[in-house]
Amino acid sequence: MIMKRFAAIVSYDGTDFFGFQNQPGLRTVQGKFEEALHRIHKFCISSQGAGRTDTGVHGFGQVIAFDSNLDRLEATTMRDALNANLPSDMYVRKVHEVDENFSPRFAAKKRIYHYYIQTSSEPDIFRRRFVWWFPYSLDIKSMRRAAVNLLGEHDFAAFRTGKDDRNPVRTITAIRIIRYKPYIILIRVEGISFLKRMVRNIVGTLVKVGTGSVSEESVSEFLSSHDRSTLPGTAPPQGLVFYKVIFDEFET
Amino acid sequence: MIMKRFAAIVSYDGTDFFGFQNQPGLRTVQGKFEEALHRIHKFCISSQGAGRTDTGVHGFGQVIAFDSNLDRLEATTMRDALNANLPSDMYVRKVHEVDENFSPRFAAKKRIYHYYIQTSSEPDIFRRRFVWWFPYSLDIKSMRRAAVNLLGEHDFAAFRTGKDDRNPVRTITAIRIIRYKPYIILIRVEGISFLKRMVRNIVGTLVKVGTGSVSEESVSEFLSSHDRSTLPGTAPPQGLVFYKVIFDEFET
Repeated sequence: MIMKRFAAIVSYDGTDFFGFQNQPGLRTVQGKFEEALHRIHKFCISSQGAGRTDTGVHGFGQVIAFDSNLDRLEATTMRDALNANLPSDMYVRKVHEVDENFSPRFAAKKRIYHYYIQTSSEPDIFRRRFVWWFPYSLDIKSMRRAAVNLLGEHDFAAFRTGKDDRNPVRTITAIRIIRYKPYIILIRVEGISFLKRMVRNIVGTLVKVGTGSVSEESVSEFLSSHDRSTLPGTAPPQGLVFYKVIFDEFET
Repeated sequence: MIMKRFAAIVSYDGTDFFGFQNQPGLRTVQGKFEEALHRIHKFCISSQGAGRTDTGVHGFGQVIAFDSNLDRLEATTMRDALNANLPSDMYVRKVHEVDENFSPRFAAKKRIYHYYIQTSSEPDIFRRRFVWWFPYSLDIKSMRRAAVNLLGEHDFAAFRTGKDDRNPVRTITAIRIIRYKPYIILIRVEGISFLKRMVRNIVGTLVKVGTGSVSEESVSEFLSSHDRSTLPGTAPPQGLVFYKVIFDEFET
């Protein structure tokens, strides 16, 4: 049997999923993706994502790879077949044909996350699934200065939540904090790979700097403590989007 | 017992409601509002809205009036009490104290609806609850010319769906069709009052004009037919927002 490997660029509204990863009996992004693969192929096909996302966290550029015996299928046809079989809160933006050894997890050169904070005094009913409503003013310049302490390679054990036995040394290549709309701040975090809840712990900490309740310098102290319990807070999941993964192999 | 009448300006994401109006055993906007009133007052209080919205239709400026025996409560305190008792897909933007005879239904001088159409070739997962995804190009100028036929006082029987025994003569004071974002068209319809599904039938018809499948002139013919079955289509609920109600009594 000739097999072809595909990589799909997938968006999803994470609100109604129990996270990305397969969990028996629960509605997950990977589970729904593999259900669609099953409907197309008539047998079970496993898949691999570029990164896990927690319950309530969204995807814009998640990348999911899988093998198919439908070797005559064009990538665009596979894309349309997947979209015809996915629920309305998931959408495949592109499908690429990739090398048979391609792994989105290991081939990823960079991962980019976006976090949206809405600072208006009133909540916005129509954005509530996609922002952290935090109705206080934030000193963006102070947050930017604090973020500089996180750039580069560090032991990020203090910024990790839950069970995660992997090496805690990670590299953050960029953090940009911009006023995306009058009342919405976007924190864009770029790195090679991330620990569990690392972005939400970074955002939670930077927000505390933004309100003045934690000093800019303390961010370095949190890092060197290697101790999660020193951190002032974790940002809630709904503001976070797994925005983009960068590979050498193709344009996402 | 001294009673005070209040009018609340209410936003809601209509996706998970069975419309505005009370229906036993179903999750409705009015039902959730009256549940919040019950929790605050410890007894049942009935309410009146400025207009009904169907399942999936949203509110930004719905107005709901009710009487309260908590006559010492300031309007802002009532607002906060309601918000503390409403689900996350409803939000009271303002509360006004009004005259004891005020009726949002009969006092309304103007009602404004917004309808959002997304014309990009790709859907937007994050907007899907609030737009009609219609991935075709629309001739906005032609739609504007067609809309002129609907302005003023007409018998709108052809633009009504379902049971509605009321007088079908209605007045539309303005229709504006604007490019709200590069791929989103906003149709804003202002009138004094509307028949059941009237805005969605107007939008469905204008979109058919925009694609060229129905002529600009035929809009007048639909009107004068007084016959719903002549209409080419109804727009789906999720693009519609009950945007604003205008009263002489207070600023909404």
